[in-house]
Amino acid sequence: MRLMPEVRFRDARLEMAHGAGGKATRRLVEGLFLPLLDNPALAPLSDAAWIDGDGMAAAMTADAFVVRPLRFPGGSIGELAVNGTVNDLCVAGAQPVALMAAFILEAGLPGDVLRAEVEAMAQAARRAGVAVVGGDTKVVEHGLADGMYIATFGLGRPDPRLRLGAARVRPGDRVLVSGPIGDHGITILLARGDLDLEADLRSDTRPLTPFVEALAAAAAQGVRWMRDPTRGGIASALNELAREAGAGIVLFEEEIPLRGEVRGACEILGLDPLHIANEGQLLAVVAPELAADALRALRRVPGGEQAALIGEIRDAPVRTVLAETRYGGSRVVDMLVGDPLPRIC
Amino acid sequence: MRLMPEVRFRDARLEMAHGAGGKATRRLVEGLFLPLLDNPALAPLSDAAWIDGDGMAAAMTADAFVVRPLRFPGGSIGELAVNGTVNDLCVAGAQPVALMAAFILEAGLPGDVLRAEVEAMAQAARRAGVAVVGGDTKVVEHGLADGMYIATFGLGRPDPRLRLGAARVRPGDRVLVSGPIGDHGITILLARGDLDLEADLRSDTRPLTPFVEALAAAAAQGVRWMRDPTRGGIASALNELAREAGAGIVLFEEEIPLRGEVRGACEILGLDPLHIANEGQLLAVVAPELAADALRALRRVPGGEQAALIGEIRDAPVRTVLAETRYGGSRVVDMLVGDPLPRIC
Repeated sequence: MRLMPEVRFRDARLEMAHGAGGKATRRLVEGLFLPLLDNPALAPLSDAAWIDGDGMAAAMTADAFVVRPLRFPGGSIGELAVNGTVNDLCVAGAQPVALMAAFILEAGLPGDVLRAEVEAMAQAARRAGVAVVGGDTKVVEHGLADGMYIATFGLGRPDPRLRLGAARVRPGDRVLVSGPIGDHGITILLARGDLDLEADLRSDTRPLTPFVEALAAAAAQGVRWMRDPTRGGIASALNELAREAGAGIVLFEEEIPLRGEVRGACEILGLDPLHIANEGQLLAVVAPELAADALRALRRVPGGEQAALIGEIRDAPVRTVLAETRYGGSRVVDMLVGDPLPRIC
Repeated sequence: MRLMPEVRFRDARLEMAHGAGGKATRRLVEGLFLPLLDNPALAPLSDAAWIDGDGMAAAMTADAFVVRPLRFPGGSIGELAVNGTVNDLCVAGAQPVALMAAFILEAGLPGDVLRAEVEAMAQAARRAGVAVVGGDTKVVEHGLADGMYIATFGLGRPDPRLRLGAARVRPGDRVLVSGPIGDHGITILLARGDLDLEADLRSDTRPLTPFVEALAAAAAQGVRWMRDPTRGGIASALNELAREAGAGIVLFEEEIPLRGEVRGACEILGLDPLHIANEGQLLAVVAPELAADALRALRRVPGGEQAALIGEIRDAPVRTVLAETRYGGSRVVDMLVGDPLPRIC
């Protein structure tokens, strides 16, 4: 489904928030990129585009990775670059075929640091069952990058079992998540050591292929929409869905899996866990009659033990995400505004 | 054809030369990336990889662009990013289908600077007949990038008329170039204003699609190998060919088209024009019986008026490029060593 440009990009200067995946990113993408690059295959806010015609049916994705620090508990930029691209393909309903990577390296970077990241990429690619088939390397002067940046490109073929799209979402559909949210974002924040906080937390970076495989096997007919809620968290992903589908979404706040460490860090820092980036969680909308099967399937996947049914599609209020508590309270969950956690991926 | 890792990457730190497309880049790619990412589709030094199987036949390319300054006579980073990727597909024998772009933006970049580059990309994509179907945007702190870097990803389908590869090159084959060399590199160097030199020179950035189309129409059976001689110039591209093909290459030095301004700047600066980057020239190896047809076809393309037959494949000395002058002198033309022109693309 195409989005008409409702917003204009008039910002005088680029700010960190333009890369945060929230409202400023939306303004940049919908107000500048979409109108200028207008063409039928142009992907809207999700990162995968479908090429279909002349004997070729393929999904393409592109992602830049600028995470700081390069290594953090549970992962590193190289692992993230592979998993993030694999996951963009997966949630678009594509089976990953091949990846390429473009490196922008800072002069002076120790050779061993680069070697460790190429090894991490190779290992992540093996785990996800995809090959890194080529790439490019550029070097910029010392000081003009932060060690290294990696852009990854993914090519996938359509998974014939899945038919996905915001337009397929209907009132009554259920919202599922594969596990606890916010681990990645809070891990990165703590790894920077700027805060006087410690927690036993690791990034959730991983390929979503096993989750998608489980859903496709157990409930393919009922899977309407999937997303990898990275920058901007599940709040931004669900707000985009609410807008694209012209629907309302209600979240059952207490049902959302959340580690105590993430909850605690968010409380101290005044952050909403719904806005925190994940790098290994699947968000899916499933038809009500298959939601229980889908949930069981997710829970059987290693790492999916805490999968949960966390919300429902409603016909009103349209284009809005509400979080309801057990005691009847509710609050509007908006997209991320600003950038509380820059360079998270 | 796969290259076996003959070199090891032991460099303690990354240097500008690792991104220059010459010997240090070869050490990085063959000594680090190839052994770690080993898989059957992995592209060797050229940037295009072929995916073939399970009903999909496609070429993929990835390039990062870090050119400084962002705008220069004849082009800009956005135009370069599109043309460079289109050209990597073309010379691999693929018809470009779609592009994606990942932007790494420096906080503080004026919005108008970004807008101008997205417009330049859109225009270059229209000219090349390809769509930009999506992308990603990240922002890093002010000072940690140089305005913007762009990584571009290209997808192509095989051109059924062409069968290319270093393994197809035979002694007696002719080397053609589509026009004067070195315009891009010297334009960038002068645009930086560090040198007290001026010249009426423009980058040659352009899509090579019309050249490849002309060759495919006039001499498809005879076209053995093509390359877009960017970083490292025609010297590095031909040295790679000589190594991959296990052949010798002789260049007829006086036949190589070269503008007086480029020759003059190279003489003053002590640079070899054969090492200077091009962004709109096609280098092709063609069977001797079709070389004249191929040359006529290139010359009929606007911008190809100065196309020339500049060399020949020999059976010895293997893995060597020699430049011969009319008076019988000859010199070994090596790959680029070091990086006399950093951040040229």
